[in-house]
Amino acid sequence: MRYLTSGESHGPQLTTIIEGLPAGLPLLETDINESLARRQKGYGRGRRMQIEKDTVQITSGVRHGYTLGSPVGLVVENDDWKHWTKIMGQAPIEPEELEEVKRKITRPRPGHADLNGAVKYGHRDMRNVLERSSARETTVRVAAGAVAKKLLSSLGIEVVGHVVEIGGIVSNVKSYSSMEELKTITEESPVRCLDSVAAEEMMVAIDNAKKNGDSIGGVVEVVVEGMPSGVGSYVHYDRKLDAKLAYAMLSINAFKGVEFGIGFEAARKPGSQVHDEIAWSEEKGYYRKTNNLGGFEGGMTTGMPIVVKGVMKPIPTLYKPLESVDIDTKEPFNASIERSDSCAVPAAAVVAEHVIAWELASAIVEQFYADRFETLKDIIADQKRYAKEF
Amino acid sequence: MRYLTSGESHGPQLTTIIEGLPAGLPLLETDINESLARRQKGYGRGRRMQIEKDTVQITSGVRHGYTLGSPVGLVVENDDWKHWTKIMGQAPIEPEELEEVKRKITRPRPGHADLNGAVKYGHRDMRNVLERSSARETTVRVAAGAVAKKLLSSLGIEVVGHVVEIGGIVSNVKSYSSMEELKTITEESPVRCLDSVAAEEMMVAIDNAKKNGDSIGGVVEVVVEGMPSGVGSYVHYDRKLDAKLAYAMLSINAFKGVEFGIGFEAARKPGSQVHDEIAWSEEKGYYRKTNNLGGFEGGMTTGMPIVVKGVMKPIPTLYKPLESVDIDTKEPFNASIERSDSCAVPAAAVVAEHVIAWELASAIVEQFYADRFETLKDIIADQKRYAKEF
Amino acid sequence: MRYLTSGESHGPQLTTIIEGLPAGLPLLETDINESLARRQKGYGRGRRMQIEKDTVQITSGVRHGYTLGSPVGLVVENDDWKHWTKIMGQAPIEPEELEEVKRKITRPRPGHADLNGAVKYGHRDMRNVLERSSARETTVRVAAGAVAKKLLSSLGIEVVGHVVEIGGIVSNVKSYSSMEELKTITEESPVRCLDSVAAEEMMVAIDNAKKNGDSIGGVVEVVVEGMPSGVGSYVHYDRKLDAKLAYAMLSINAFKGVEFGIGFEAARKPGSQVHDEIAWSEEKGYYRKTNNLGGFEGGMTTGMPIVVKGVMKPIPTLYKPLESVDIDTKEPFNASIERSDSCAVPAAAVVAEHVIAWELASAIVEQFYADRFETLKDIIADQKRYAKEF
Amino acid sequence: MRYLTSGESHGPQLTTIIEGLPAGLPLLETDINESLARRQKGYGRGRRMQIEKDTVQITSGVRHGYTLGSPVGLVVENDDWKHWTKIMGQAPIEPEELEEVKRKITRPRPGHADLNGAVKYGHRDMRNVLERSSARETTVRVAAGAVAKKLLSSLGIEVVGHVVEIGGIVSNVKSYSSMEELKTITEESPVRCLDSVAAEEMMVAIDNAKKNGDSIGGVVEVVVEGMPSGVGSYVHYDRKLDAKLAYAMLSINAFKGVEFGIGFEAARKPGSQVHDEIAWSEEKGYYRKTNNLGGFEGGMTTGMPIVVKGVMKPIPTLYKPLESVDIDTKEPFNASIERSDSCAVPAAAVVAEHVIAWELASAIVEQFYADRFETLKDIIADQKRYAKEF
Repeated sequence: MRYLTSGESHGPQLTTIIEGLPAGLPLLETDINESLARRQKGYGRGRRMQIEKDTVQITSGVRHGYTLGSPVGLVVENDDWKHWTKIMGQAPIEPEELEEVKRKITRPRPGHADLNGAVKYGHRDMRNVLERSSARETTVRVAAGAVAKKLLSSLGIEVVGHVVEIGGIVSNVKSYSSMEELKTITEESPVRCLDSVAAEEMMVAIDNAKKNGDSIGGVVEVVVEGMPSGVGSYVHYDRKLDAKLAYAMLSINAFKGVEFGIGFEAARKPGSQVHDEIAWSEEKGYYRKTNNLGGFEGGMTTGMPIVVKGVMKPIPTLYKPLESVDIDTKEPFNASIERSDSCAVPAAAVVAEHVIAWELASAIVEQFYADRFETLKDIIADQKRYAKEF
Repeated sequence: MRYLTSGESHGPQLTTIIEGLPAGLPLLETDINESLARRQKGYGRGRRMQIEKDTVQITSGVRHGYTLGSPVGLVVENDDWKHWTKIMGQAPIEPEELEEVKRKITRPRPGHADLNGAVKYGHRDMRNVLERSSARETTVRVAAGAVAKKLLSSLGIEVVGHVVEIGGIVSNVKSYSSMEELKTITEESPVRCLDSVAAEEMMVAIDNAKKNGDSIGGVVEVVVEGMPSGVGSYVHYDRKLDAKLAYAMLSINAFKGVEFGIGFEAARKPGSQVHDEIAWSEEKGYYRKTNNLGGFEGGMTTGMPIVVKGVMKPIPTLYKPLESVDIDTKEPFNASIERSDSCAVPAAAVVAEHVIAWELASAIVEQFYADRFETLKDIIADQKRYAKEF
Repeated sequence: MRYLTSGESHGPQLTTIIEGLPAGLPLLETDINESLARRQKGYGRGRRMQIEKDTVQITSGVRHGYTLGSPVGLVVENDDWKHWTKIMGQAPIEPEELEEVKRKITRPRPGHADLNGAVKYGHRDMRNVLERSSARETTVRVAAGAVAKKLLSSLGIEVVGHVVEIGGIVSNVKSYSSMEELKTITEESPVRCLDSVAAEEMMVAIDNAKKNGDSIGGVVEVVVEGMPSGVGSYVHYDRKLDAKLAYAMLSINAFKGVEFGIGFEAARKPGSQVHDEIAWSEEKGYYRKTNNLGGFEGGMTTGMPIVVKGVMKPIPTLYKPLESVDIDTKEPFNASIERSDSCAVPAAAVVAEHVIAWELASAIVEQFYADRFETLKDIIADQKRYAKEF
Repeated sequence: MRYLTSGESHGPQLTTIIEGLPAGLPLLETDINESLARRQKGYGRGRRMQIEKDTVQITSGVRHGYTLGSPVGLVVENDDWKHWTKIMGQAPIEPEELEEVKRKITRPRPGHADLNGAVKYGHRDMRNVLERSSARETTVRVAAGAVAKKLLSSLGIEVVGHVVEIGGIVSNVKSYSSMEELKTITEESPVRCLDSVAAEEMMVAIDNAKKNGDSIGGVVEVVVEGMPSGVGSYVHYDRKLDAKLAYAMLSINAFKGVEFGIGFEAARKPGSQVHDEIAWSEEKGYYRKTNNLGGFEGGMTTGMPIVVKGVMKPIPTLYKPLESVDIDTKEPFNASIERSDSCAVPAAAVVAEHVIAWELASAIVEQFYADRFETLKDIIADQKRYAKEF
């Protein structure tokens, strides 16, 4: 499975083509729209999130509610494109018009792709960069991930992203009785946090950041239950599934780190307190008594829940200005202000959930079987039975 | 550029084939042997490291000291293969012999690939797993990385891996006057640490772990100077170079997390203290006043030093036993003991340095030019000049 | 460079996303529309070609007439989608409606993907196969190829596809004074043939086939001038550019063979009459006295014109029925008749031209340089100068 | 599944690493040696073939006769390396020695990679090119293919390459009662031809070519029986399996064309005589009454035998000289003579058989299942049963 995305932030639409899905998977636009809506929620988002309601159109690959095996095309239109047709239009415009409409940007914002992107691609107008480097693109990554989630949930695999830290405030609730509970509680929390006390403090911190013209980041966690063991492999370094998840996590805008299970804590504990003892029972087959390693050994799933965290830096678009340099004049200035959120961590949890789901679905299809969804289901069921009895 | 590796821990040899190197790059076996020797050093290593001195043979792709453009084959022989020819031989052996020589392993060690690998590939003898999942494979990954390092250093790009934490003891020396200094000091430190005081404590911690039959992990940091800006890209999620480095880091045996620049600290600081202000001067061109983001914005290099950290869990092979289950009897037992190191973090710093070097060299060759090394050099020099004057 | 396509024949639209184009390439919708129009021309096409006029919309990656470096999205709408919304809609429909609108197909046509595709993906209704396996998809492959052609022509590289044989009638005009002439003459020929006498006979053959309810195939040739030498490589089998072109050619619907230069004739001639002697002159640098090998030696371009032919089988949709089997009843029947062309070879020449152009543009970007089109132009010019003086 | 190869013609060894094989496949060195021996046979080969007997060493990935799932390393040593250690050594040599031993080649042979390769990689000594562009490399491609053939035959899939034309002499025996017969008869023929009368004429033609200091080419055919239907796909152009086979065939040294089934004949026949009618019977399930399309429809296997032909140009190394240019002096000369075969078509049939086998095995593992060979066997058996009953 693979997908490409295209689309600028203020262009007509965002598009993704998903190639390699099995045929016969039930799939509706509402499955995807639910994910798009979840991405748009979250305390601390700016105005754009409220005015635009993203909805998807399936343009190919699905007929009468089931995937065909052919590529699935998804489109999310940008509602405000009508105001941007001249500025962002694909056709050349008259030189006199150009100056007027172009809103040329020559002042790179620290923490954004602006400057490096401009130099790399030779853009004197950095709008040519920021239109694509914008987190707006995560919309269709979520759409692709929603399709992956549908495939996974149809195989009994659940994926939930939630927030465990914002602006230094840490969630203290680590346990939940079921994935269902984790999902429900975090869905209802404006900051997608399991700990309602911490959630309150997080919201205060977001308000304060906003007041100060500042922004804050945080840590999101994605939990996965139901994966068969042995997905990924130790036999070649580029087959390690945890490495692929790390790649996916770091490919989300503004993410600066990732860790599995106890992660960086593993540098501080002796091995005897880190490794998860192995047990077996008639009902469960093999299992681990703890899950410090977050569901991975040797680059493969262990069958235990996958637990992976990612850190998001504070949104770089600041009302409180940072120093930068105009690329035309080389003069210093205080970095330009764009309409922005003060905290995007709750939304990032949704994005993380979806990019992780994509990698898992993709790994399953590649390792097990690629054509008919019903047959894939049987093969996965056989595999789970086999693993239990091994 | 791409490479494949093969070889079991007690097989005849480890092999790698490197494909896609430009022609005309100076390359000697000694360039690679130096890296192999550095990987074998380090306080806390077990006996095997001392008895086997790894040396490489270049079997193709290099003639009279220069790469040919054709694939480079590298072989590192396993010295103790002679004792393992029956146990690990490729040819079938007689059933009666089998029992005697096979050293069949039915007891998976927690924290290793043993159990998942056995189930995945259907091995009732887990030696079939651990021979490949062993960190012995990193030998040829270092060899491939040594070739990449040669390419990078010939372009004025230096890569150094060092240790910043072991068993909870943190290096407090964060600055160095030059890459040369960083390299020299950490090379002389038995734990590859810049802070000589912390280094002493780390060694005590390693000794204590050993005494307790336990093991400890740590954090390594890789620093890169001299990269042109704009390597990697924001235009598609899978072109982000930091994500590729994360992939590489997590693909090292026993690594559980990765972070860039201030990493997870970014969740605790306001944006105004995270983003690196942009400046410009006649001599330096564009630069950042700080480097909190570790050399990356928008998935591209900024031209500032790359700073990436990875966390290694304690080595799972313990003298202090953990509980596990025999896969034949399903009976619990205390996990089997193999000859082992008590701390492999200093060696892991060398491995990390080399896998990061590989990704950078590969990204440069793909983005800029692939055929003649001298022409690549000119193109990179042009690019740096252009970026400065942009 | 890479691209994905999506879209069913009677779905709302065809889509392609092109990823990896350099920034700063001039690109207009009209560049692409011209190619789409050429694909729709050609003696022997059925009704659909006349009623639908394909036009492209650029939905991303281009601003004010230049590529941005970000992915280029292209959409071609299907005009008759309005008549097919129920039959091909993505949403589930009521069971009672289903029977009425579904136009379920249970009778596989020989020579089509129908039967194998149905078995593979588990479709009892073979419409689910033929909607995607239809040559309608080549529309967006031509669109992607048109972008590639723009890149190539901006580098001084021209690509022309024309027809050299239809239904056993062979073009006897082998030479032309210039690419411009080849282009102009074949563009004006209803069968895209350089030989006007043969062209007349071809049209008669097409008419006869139509009268008989039959169909005919033919051979197309793609010629390329201006490629730098040394694109592709002998160093690894999967870097051979002629092999990639063969892949591309065979990936066109209904193509059954490919050959370079004198192709299969090489089996009938002694080596002394096959290999192209090498010469050198001050003005031209190295060149070949003949071009029997069609522009390739060792999987690399020689700098001589690339000449590659592909054979297209007769269109499998016949008015003259072939025997097949109903998959529900297992009863034999005479294969169902769909609206169809009797000869699609002239259009296939346009498709071949475009898929070959894609591979060449892609090879250039990968081998030389990927970011700014102006810099790529300089590097290619330098390379040509260097090669001449070598 | 993927593999890389390395090694120069007069270097110490040829190496391949095969990655992605399922575990539990029976595999012996003799399986591979048999293929290597077949590649070395054939009327018309030069001296080298007789003096060197290629044998493989498995250096990893196989234990006690079964694959482990880890990468399989294969080595074939070059017997005459001992005479070439100075000339082809990886270490620098003294300048004075250089002139003496280097056997510098400045005279490119027409039809070889010499000139383009030298320009591309900047080699003033074309030995740096020809050592890798030599067909010697096909030795390890055959080795990799032998492993693929073992996988296929263990799944009941047989692949046989044979010769159907040499120097214009065409085999007139088109049919055989079984794959076994095809295999046995062609194996015993010195030119690997089913038609013993034509075989005699071919040998005369080879003798004549040799006498004239000339060389001749030919056409080879690879036949495959037992493939399940539906391997490959129409859903995306780069999933078409026939296109992948074309790529593989054209990647063999000196191949200039490929065709499936009746191939280029399809341009001369009406559709009603080309497409294969579909039938069904209780015993066989779906089948075709003829096999003009060579086992492929819509880029997928039909379950009928795969029939693919490739054309090999005459070996470019001639005793009868062709004109060329010295790259140092730019003076014309008559192309240098190297020890050579006058016809390599019988060997090429073996190479073609093996590269086709690789692509098929690879496609099966990717589409169906990748881990345990026994499970793959069950899944393929299930798939065949399902397809029959569809």
